[in-house]
Amino acid sequence: MDKEDKYTQSETDVLIIGAGPSGLMAAYWMARYGISARIIDKRDTKVFIGHADGLRARTMELFDSMGIQQRVIQEGSISTEANIWVPGPQGKLVRQAYINISRVDESPFSNTCLTQGRIERFILDSIREHSDLDVEYGVIAESLEYDEELRNDPNSYPITVKVRVLGEDDSNVEDRSEAAGNEMNRNNLLPDDWADLAQRKKLQKTQVESIKAKYLIGCDGAHSWTRKQLKIPVEGSNTDHIWGVIDVIPLSDFPDVRRLSIVTNTAGTILVIPRERGLVRFYVPVQTCEAGTTDRFDRSKITPDLIRERVQAIFAPFTFDFKEYSWWTVYQVGQRISAQSTKDNRVFLSGDAVHTHSPKMGLGMNMSLQDGFNVGWKIALAVAGTLKPEVLGTYALERHPLAEMLLELDRTWSPMFNDQKPEVVDTKASDMALIAAKFEDFADGWKVFYPTSSLVWKAEDNAEFAFARHMIPGERVRPVKLRNQAEGTPLWTTRSLESDGRFRILVLAGDIRNLMQKQRIETLTKALAGQSGSNTSPLDRYLEIPGRFKSPIDVLTIHAAPWKEVEFFDFPEILRPFDPVKGWAYDKIWCDDACIFDRYCDGTAYEKWGVDRVLGALVVVRPDQYIGWVGELGDLEGLTHYLDGILVKKFPTGEIDPFL
Amino acid sequence: MDKEDKYTQSETDVLIIGAGPSGLMAAYWMARYGISARIIDKRDTKVFIGHADGLRARTMELFDSMGIQQRVIQEGSISTEANIWVPGPQGKLVRQAYINISRVDESPFSNTCLTQGRIERFILDSIREHSDLDVEYGVIAESLEYDEELRNDPNSYPITVKVRVLGEDDSNVEDRSEAAGNEMNRNNLLPDDWADLAQRKKLQKTQVESIKAKYLIGCDGAHSWTRKQLKIPVEGSNTDHIWGVIDVIPLSDFPDVRRLSIVTNTAGTILVIPRERGLVRFYVPVQTCEAGTTDRFDRSKITPDLIRERVQAIFAPFTFDFKEYSWWTVYQVGQRISAQSTKDNRVFLSGDAVHTHSPKMGLGMNMSLQDGFNVGWKIALAVAGTLKPEVLGTYALERHPLAEMLLELDRTWSPMFNDQKPEVVDTKASDMALIAAKFEDFADGWKVFYPTSSLVWKAEDNAEFAFARHMIPGERVRPVKLRNQAEGTPLWTTRSLESDGRFRILVLAGDIRNLMQKQRIETLTKALAGQSGSNTSPLDRYLEIPGRFKSPIDVLTIHAAPWKEVEFFDFPEILRPFDPVKGWAYDKIWCDDACIFDRYCDGTAYEKWGVDRVLGALVVVRPDQYIGWVGELGDLEGLTHYLDGILVKKFPTGEIDPFL
Repeated sequence: MDKEDKYTQSETDVLIIGAGPSGLMAAYWMARYGISARIIDKRDTKVFIGHADGLRARTMELFDSMGIQQRVIQEGSISTEANIWVPGPQGKLVRQAYINISRVDESPFSNTCLTQGRIERFILDSIREHSDLDVEYGVIAESLEYDEELRNDPNSYPITVKVRVLGEDDSNVEDRSEAAGNEMNRNNLLPDDWADLAQRKKLQKTQVESIKAKYLIGCDGAHSWTRKQLKIPVEGSNTDHIWGVIDVIPLSDFPDVRRLSIVTNTAGTILVIPRERGLVRFYVPVQTCEAGTTDRFDRSKITPDLIRERVQAIFAPFTFDFKEYSWWTVYQVGQRISAQSTKDNRVFLSGDAVHTHSPKMGLGMNMSLQDGFNVGWKIALAVAGTLKPEVLGTYALERHPLAEMLLELDRTWSPMFNDQKPEVVDTKASDMALIAAKFEDFADGWKVFYPTSSLVWKAEDNAEFAFARHMIPGERVRPVKLRNQAEGTPLWTTRSLESDGRFRILVLAGDIRNLMQKQRIETLTKALAGQSGSNTSPLDRYLEIPGRFKSPIDVLTIHAAPWKEVEFFDFPEILRPFDPVKGWAYDKIWCDDACIFDRYCDGTAYEKWGVDRVLGALVVVRPDQYIGWVGELGDLEGLTHYLDGILVKKFPTGEIDPFL
Repeated sequence: MDKEDKYTQSETDVLIIGAGPSGLMAAYWMARYGISARIIDKRDTKVFIGHADGLRARTMELFDSMGIQQRVIQEGSISTEANIWVPGPQGKLVRQAYINISRVDESPFSNTCLTQGRIERFILDSIREHSDLDVEYGVIAESLEYDEELRNDPNSYPITVKVRVLGEDDSNVEDRSEAAGNEMNRNNLLPDDWADLAQRKKLQKTQVESIKAKYLIGCDGAHSWTRKQLKIPVEGSNTDHIWGVIDVIPLSDFPDVRRLSIVTNTAGTILVIPRERGLVRFYVPVQTCEAGTTDRFDRSKITPDLIRERVQAIFAPFTFDFKEYSWWTVYQVGQRISAQSTKDNRVFLSGDAVHTHSPKMGLGMNMSLQDGFNVGWKIALAVAGTLKPEVLGTYALERHPLAEMLLELDRTWSPMFNDQKPEVVDTKASDMALIAAKFEDFADGWKVFYPTSSLVWKAEDNAEFAFARHMIPGERVRPVKLRNQAEGTPLWTTRSLESDGRFRILVLAGDIRNLMQKQRIETLTKALAGQSGSNTSPLDRYLEIPGRFKSPIDVLTIHAAPWKEVEFFDFPEILRPFDPVKGWAYDKIWCDDACIFDRYCDGTAYEKWGVDRVLGALVVVRPDQYIGWVGELGDLEGLTHYLDGILVKKFPTGEIDPFL
């Protein structure tokens, strides 16, 4: 490309490089907040088959809040048990243990496998539903300039990225069939992916464009171009272990080929992961590097046939073969982490650009999705002017330690698959159980360990709050099924706490049949309505989300009285506000009561949350569904202090802040 | 159109006129069986908003077997209780009763409301997933010739329909915005409907075509053009009651405006039905015809404003108003039924073309969907050459009496909404409960009462079969959640019994740990495999479904031993057949065992079906998910006799039938 090329000049608030899981999750928030943003990808299309596939229950919970989990459930394959196979006394493989990996009381969802291509489809569809934002494929970033001087002015454009928009004249385009794997045709895609496979209309001539942006998110994978431009070093190293991965329709008499299994014999250890549409994924050790090196291996020697032979050797005397495979690849085990996740909180790295590790735990895509989810809402809400820009510092604070934890888990876990010592075979199940127990909360996503910050107000010494013992700031709201007061219909909180971009105050109202409690609710709601003394209502105190919501704060009330003994209109109006066109907000009052027609709506929410059924509590949930603040039902002052640290107030500087 | 117009000549196996719920369900089967078919509609697009909306649980079960129920659940509004409101002692409306209308033990689904437009979307998407069949909009049927002489030759084309394909030159096209209701724009449609709203590319000039067909299905509504061409009379009459229907976002302090409610006061009775996206449907009596007539009323006098006033009068002293409505219409209560549902079993009427009645029960769309579902698979399988054409006679036999039952229910039910006698108010709830109890099984679809025929082999005197007391031929399989033996994953039978076009033998294998029982299973499976004496295997005895399945019969095994105590490979191979590409059929063996991570997978299937947990039974389920035949586990001879009456055998005439 000549220097004389004429660059089109443009501006955008947020530029996202890379439209994989992490980039799409960040883009989801741009769509929900209505932010001016662009998302570019050098590939020609999205992923269709293969690649990452494991979804942890926590990711499914987030998908529910985005309105897409039902699509995953319909197509995906659920695993609720892991099976350990080792050679028995006669040397034949035997099932040593079933490990229950589904914690039914913890989440409505289970570990689910579905190709990354479908996950991308669902997020893309959601982005389109909420905005006109769409991925620009075939766009290659060529240079990044970052003007440090502008870093403290949130309205400035310190980032300039020059990109090349590939036209028909460019031969550098990755071949579509190669990018999408072999045997790619309409017959093995679902109809809603067909359009993406059709030849996209390209520019006749490759063009260049210079894009100025306020914020840049590099979601461009393990070999992140963005990270390299920023000269951020990567720490960690590769091991000498090389693995093959293949998605096949297995021809096998191994009994657990449709169950998540870890199979070890003297020839090695493989991982068997059942997937959608009859596919099973195999992770298979194929060879090691030349002695003393960690990078010299001959990739060309590794083929589907070689992987087949390795599985046959480990499965023996069970049979194994396949006629059809949909995707395969080779990777080298390694744990590598970017030294930083951000440059000045103007440029961010997310997903594989920050952490790469061995994919066998089914954690990689989850981490990447959740990285993008974490950084996306913060940037979008800051661009909207509603969030204080300094809150952006919490991205690295919250996600970088998790990347380190992920690598620690991988370093502990990976050798289980490589160690060929005979005694390993005997202890496999107990070893795995030990590791699983150590990392359980982290791996399943029940805990994220977000530390104290402006966004997370923990109790001193990380103690429990007496009035909401299991509502821990920095962690998720444990999902429960509640009954809508107005309609009577039960719904999981993962869906009623919709990821629409707002903070959410949960008024855990307790038992409003109790007169004292009713009085407390009235006091609280007067303050919420701004009717108590000089205090502004927290609902009316902060800048709006332009074009979306007048207030960045939504209120959900969850009471603990029996459903039939109270009425929707028993609650003060501020808890079920009236809109002159949309009427009363029927989706704002919920009831923790058992319901005869739904076995999961069992009236145990208050117990699961550790909240007194009469006295209730007050909780703030962040836009990304993590708990930010917990207080007593009456503590609106504490709540307001929390929000003041995060959100930009409406009244101009100089006006008296009633809480100061 | 001049006589000299040049008609394009074409042939199709099945022509469907009308792409509403009934026509689309019939078309679903054409897609699943890969039949040459066309579906035309005079409208320019599908329905988008308003129209029918009530889905009974039984319809949801069928949708699950088609793979689309999760889309309805995600968008629709569920009603599990009906509330009766009448004036209390002080004259103010009080809630007289909650009536539980959800039978949780009977079905995984509840009554669900969602606009017909979305239902059409989901069926259309499913049709596209399985075929290249698509609705041809803007095509008007102009003449029907039927050559009776050809009626007994299944390969002949006795039907000739001349159609006009509207081009841009035709001003006769129904206006799109009118057809779709007011306030129709991209903002109140979901994104997957946007494409349908875009201007369809039309022919420049209107064209004419003469289509020859083997079979014709008239799904063209209450004023059925097909029915008129056949000169089939309509019986029944209109009443003098005129009703308005409107879908609004209500502004009301009536406590149950988001619950299914029947509200009566001296000003009349209205029906309140909560729907998707904050909409509520109101059925409102607006006036009666002039005295002594049943057809003179001035439609122009009825407006949304008038309907509003009527609701206000009945809701008083509760408030009622609206700023937004998405759809409204006026209808006259009447019960009308076509004298026949078919002409020679070559031309069929389905849906509103057969039965019209008042829409308030939320049964109309369900009946129409189920009509189309019933007629569609039979015609498609007959065209495929697999089903004996004489089985087509069962369409009228099964569905016409239901149309009569529907009208009887409507005649009993409708007056409840018109009767203004003061004493009615007091007895409303008990009267409604009586009627509901009488029609419960029918209205909910738990029973369809299909009579004895070649497709339905009932026990003598309609007795229960001792070995499967609650498996009644002519009725549905009561849904249960079973655990897949190979995977361990639970699934409702409504989904595992997929509507893929095949008959399905349910081998209820009992407890195969029992040695005697294992022996019985082996004897059965030898016969199933055609290895016992001279008998052909029933799986290999009938003609294939060309291009789809080698055998029109699928086998599902459901055993009653604990899941962990048996293995997939314990079952004889014929029950889990091997395919050289697809491997073993892992989706064929199911287990009736409780499962700790799913509260609905509770190991009670055998009890619900009235089957002995050791001895099991044998059941044949028709392609439309109704039970056709029930027998003892060993009664393969009885089973084969049943299938011989329905399906076309493979061996040529002259060869000896082993059962003769």
